Amino acid sequence: MNTVDLNADLGEGFGSWKMADDNALLDIVTSANVACGFHAGDPSIMRAVCRRAADRGVAIGAHVGYADKAGFGRRFVDVEPAALRDEVLYQIAALDAFARIAGSKVRYVKPHGALYNTIGHHEGQAAAVIEAVSDYDRSLPVLGLPGAAWLRLAAEAGLTVVHEAFADRAYTPEGTLVSRRLPGSVLHDGAEIARRCVAMATGHAITDSEGGELKLQPTSICVHGDTPGAVEIARLVRQELTDAGVTLTPFAP
Amino acid sequence: MNTVDLNADLGEGFGSWKMADDNALLDIVTSANVACGFHAGDPSIMRAVCRRAADRGVAIGAHVGYADKAGFGRRFVDVEPAALRDEVLYQIAALDAFARIAGSKVRYVKPHGALYNTIGHHEGQAAAVIEAVSDYDRSLPVLGLPGAAWLRLAAEAGLTVVHEAFADRAYTPEGTLVSRRLPGSVLHDGAEIARRCVAMATGHAITDSEGGELKLQPTSICVHGDTPGAVEIARLVRQELTDAGVTLTPFAP
Amino acid sequence: MNTVDLNADLGEGFGSWKMADDNALLDIVTSANVACGFHAGDPSIMRAVCRRAADRGVAIGAHVGYADKAGFGRRFVDVEPAALRDEVLYQIAALDAFARIAGSKVRYVKPHGALYNTIGHHEGQAAAVIEAVSDYDRSLPVLGLPGAAWLRLAAEAGLTVVHEAFADRAYTPEGTLVSRRLPGSVLHDGAEIARRCVAMATGHAITDSEGGELKLQPTSICVHGDTPGAVEIARLVRQELTDAGVTLTPFAP
Amino acid sequence: MNTVDLNADLGEGFGSWKMADDNALLDIVTSANVACGFHAGDPSIMRAVCRRAADRGVAIGAHVGYADKAGFGRRFVDVEPAALRDEVLYQIAALDAFARIAGSKVRYVKPHGALYNTIGHHEGQAAAVIEAVSDYDRSLPVLGLPGAAWLRLAAEAGLTVVHEAFADRAYTPEGTLVSRRLPGSVLHDGAEIARRCVAMATGHAITDSEGGELKLQPTSICVHGDTPGAVEIARLVRQELTDAGVTLTPFAP
Repeated sequence: MNTVDLNADLGEGFGSWKMADDNALLDIVTSANVACGFHAGDPSIMRAVCRRAADRGVAIGAHVGYADKAGFGRRFVDVEPAALRDEVLYQIAALDAFARIAGSKVRYVKPHGALYNTIGHHEGQAAAVIEAVSDYDRSLPVLGLPGAAWLRLAAEAGLTVVHEAFADRAYTPEGTLVSRRLPGSVLHDGAEIARRCVAMATGHAITDSEGGELKLQPTSICVHGDTPGAVEIARLVRQELTDAGVTLTPFAP
Repeated sequence: MNTVDLNADLGEGFGSWKMADDNALLDIVTSANVACGFHAGDPSIMRAVCRRAADRGVAIGAHVGYADKAGFGRRFVDVEPAALRDEVLYQIAALDAFARIAGSKVRYVKPHGALYNTIGHHEGQAAAVIEAVSDYDRSLPVLGLPGAAWLRLAAEAGLTVVHEAFADRAYTPEGTLVSRRLPGSVLHDGAEIARRCVAMATGHAITDSEGGELKLQPTSICVHGDTPGAVEIARLVRQELTDAGVTLTPFAP
Repeated sequence: MNTVDLNADLGEGFGSWKMADDNALLDIVTSANVACGFHAGDPSIMRAVCRRAADRGVAIGAHVGYADKAGFGRRFVDVEPAALRDEVLYQIAALDAFARIAGSKVRYVKPHGALYNTIGHHEGQAAAVIEAVSDYDRSLPVLGLPGAAWLRLAAEAGLTVVHEAFADRAYTPEGTLVSRRLPGSVLHDGAEIARRCVAMATGHAITDSEGGELKLQPTSICVHGDTPGAVEIARLVRQELTDAGVTLTPFAP
Repeated sequence: MNTVDLNADLGEGFGSWKMADDNALLDIVTSANVACGFHAGDPSIMRAVCRRAADRGVAIGAHVGYADKAGFGRRFVDVEPAALRDEVLYQIAALDAFARIAGSKVRYVKPHGALYNTIGHHEGQAAAVIEAVSDYDRSLPVLGLPGAAWLRLAAEAGLTVVHEAFADRAYTPEGTLVSRRLPGSVLHDGAEIARRCVAMATGHAITDSEGGELKLQPTSICVHGDTPGAVEIARLVRQELTDAGVTLTPFAP
C-alpha cells in the first residue's frame, strides 16, 4: 500500500495581516509547517493553528526561520551559528508549548525560506540548526530536500532525516530543483501537478526538465498555500492521491 | 532559622547592548528573573544566563513582559488579554528550553515592569497572565507584591503565590510602595537598604514613610542590578543577611 | 458648487503581507493617508504608494501611528509624550522623502488607529503630535474628528485643522461616533453609505442613531479600504458624489 | 596648514540601552555619524544627538545601516537592492528632520557596519545606497574607505566622495585594512594611535603591517567610541593633533 505525507507552510500571518488560508489547508494536508514568530506568525496565530491541526490529526512541525519579518525569512542573514542555534531552539520550544496545550506536540522541524536554502550548502548555519534540534529533542525528525548538506550532517548527528519533494517545481535530471530564475521552474497547472504527485507517491517516474524520467520517492510532498489558486491545487492533489489509492498520513509518529 | 530568597532582573541586554552585570549578580542572588526576548533579552543571552544560573544553583524565573523593546517593557500596552496570554505562554516556553538544556527548568514566573504594575489592578490582563502560567504548568509559582489583584486571582486559580518586597523602596504605613514620583521613594544608601533587608528577613519591622513600624515578611527580596552602584548594594545586602544568620536559598523547589 | 475630499488609509501592507487594494483606492480617493512604517507600511511600499498617488493628483498625508506592527497601531501604548513627539516627527520626515522624489510632498497629517482615538482625549499625547507637526512644518494641516481634544490644541497652536466624517459609521445626535461595541455602529450597505456621503457633501442632514436629523459638514470623508467589499463601496461613494454634482478634490493645497 | 576631520559613530543606544558616551565624544569629534533607528538609535536619541552636535558645530552624517537591531547592523543581510535603496532613503530623511530642527542638516552619508563592508564589493547593494543618496540630495558627500567599490560608483554617479582612515587599525602595504581576524589588526595603545593620526594628518607615512612606510592622506579619521578606553583615546588623538598644529574641522560644508 502506498502512503505519503502532504506538508504545507501555515500560520504565516502576522497580527492583522493574513497569508494563506490556514483553515482550508488544514483540511487538506497531513503535516503543518507552523511559523514560529520569527519570519512570520505570532503567538495567537500559533495557538490557533496548533489547536486546529491537533483537532484534525495534522502533525505539527516547527517551521523555523531567520528573525526577519520585513523579509519574510526569504533573504539570507549572515547570523553567527551560535546565535542562529539559539534562535532556532527558541522557536521550537515556543511552538511546542502551543502544540502541547492543544494536546499534540512538535513532531518535526523544517527550516523556512532562505534558511532552508542556505543550509543546503552553508555548513556553519547547518550545524547550528542541527544543534538546536538535538538540544531540544534528539528524536525530532528533520524534513528537507535530498542532497542538502544539512540533512547529511543531521544524519551524521543521529537525527532522523525525512525527504520531501515539491509538488509544483520542475526537477533537473539529477533530481535537483530547476532554479526559480529559469522559465518553467514552477508549474501552475493543477492537473499536471496532481499527476506528478500521484507518480511520486506510487513509485513511478516524473518527467524531468530535459524530458527524461526521474524517480523521486519522497516521504512527504510539499504543497503551497500562499499563491492564487494554491488551495484548489492542494485540494486536487489530495483528491487525486486518494483516488489513486494512496494513503495520506503524517510521516511523523 | 531564618531564610529568604534574593531575586533580581537578569538577562536584560539585547544583542550588542548590555544592561546589568549579569555575572556579578548571579554570584549574589538566589533567584534570577530572566528576560525572555520580548521587553529585553535574546536567545543567546537567555542561554548564557540560564547556563550560569544553573551552574550556581540560582533558580530561573520567567521574567515575562510586553513585546516592547523600544520601551523596555516599562510602558503600558493595551494588548487584548487573549493575545497577552499567548505572548506570556510563548515567553515561558522559550525560556524553559534554555533552562532545561542547562540542566534546570523555569521554576517561577514574575512579570516585568509595566505588565507587573498593570496586573496589580487590570483584571483582564491579570487573568491573561494567570491563564498562560496555568496553561504551561500549574505547579509554577508566581512572584509578586502582596495585595496585587493578579496574585489574588492566581491564588483563586490554584497557583502558588509568593510574596516579595523591594530592598530599596520606601513603604507606606499600609504596606504599599511609595510612588516613585514622590521624594524619598527610592533608597540609595547601601547600609540602610541592607539593614532593612535584614529586618524583613528576621521578622522585624522596618520604618515606613510616616516613621511608624511596618512588618513585611517577604519570601523573596528584590534587589536591582541596573543602576549605578547596584551590584555593590546587592552584595552588601547578601553579606549583611549572611552575617545576621539568614540562610539565602531559592524559594522555588 | 459643492466640493469634498475623500480620504482612505493606504500603504498598510508590510513586506510580503498585503492589506487593502492600494491601487484600486488610488483611483477613487483624493487624499491618501499613507502609513509610515511604524504601525504598518515599509519604505518600498511608501515609495510605491507615493509615486502612484502623485501621478494621480492624490494628496499624500502622513498616517502616523504607534510603533506597534504586531498590534497594527490599534492598541493604546502609554508612550511618553516626548518619545511620541519624536516618533511622529520621524515618520512624517521619512514619508516626505518618498513624496518628494515622486514630485509631491506630505500635505497633511492624520494619526492612525489607537493614536487617533487616544489624542481625542489624552492631552499629553495630543500635544506631542502637535509639537511634531509644528516642528516639521507649521503649514501642514491636521485631519481629524470635530470635537477631538487634539484638534482644539492644534488650532490653539496655530495649525490648520480640517474635519472629517466617516462614511460608514453611525453618529449620535450630538455628532459623535456610536461606539463600535454597539449594534448598528458600522454601516455595511453601500447604497446607504453613498447616500449619506452625498447628504454630507451637499449640506443636508443624515439620520442619527436616534432617528433625528444631524448636519455634518466635513471637509473630507473617510472611506475604508481594508474590509470585504470596501473598494466597491468606496467606488460607489465616489460615483454617487460625482453624479450629485459634487466636485472631488484634495482639501490640502 | 594641515586640517583634518575626526568622525565617530554616535547615537547608537536604543531605548533604555546605552552604547558609547555620546556627550563626551561630541566634545572631541568634528563629524558625528548618527545612527538612524535601523541598526541602532531611536527618534529621541536622534533628536538629542543632533541638538548637541549642532550646538557644538559638529557636522551631522547619516549613519545608515541594515534594519537589524538584533545584529547591530554587523551582519550581512541579502536584502534586495530596491528595498535597500528605500530603507537608506528613509533613514537619511528621518535623521535630516532632527538635524534641521536643531538648526543644522544632514551633511554627509556613511554606511554602517556590515553594509559599509558589503558595498566595498557588492555592486548591487552599492548602487542601492548611491541611488538613495542621489534621490535625497545629490550634493551630499559620501564617506568611506579608498578603494571601495561603492565610492567608485558614487564618483561615477556624480556624488562627492570623501576618504577616511581608521585611527586604530593596522594597514597592509597596499593600504587596505588588515583583517580583524589577524593578530595586531586593531591597535590599543592610545599614544601609538595618536601618533599615527598625527602622521596621517600632516602628510607623513605610518608603518604598515610589514614594517614599511605607507602614506595615507585621509580627509577624515574615524575614532571609535564604544570600546573600553575609547573616549580617552579619542581625546588623546584630538589633543595630539591640536598640539601638532593640525586644525580639526568638519570636512562637510
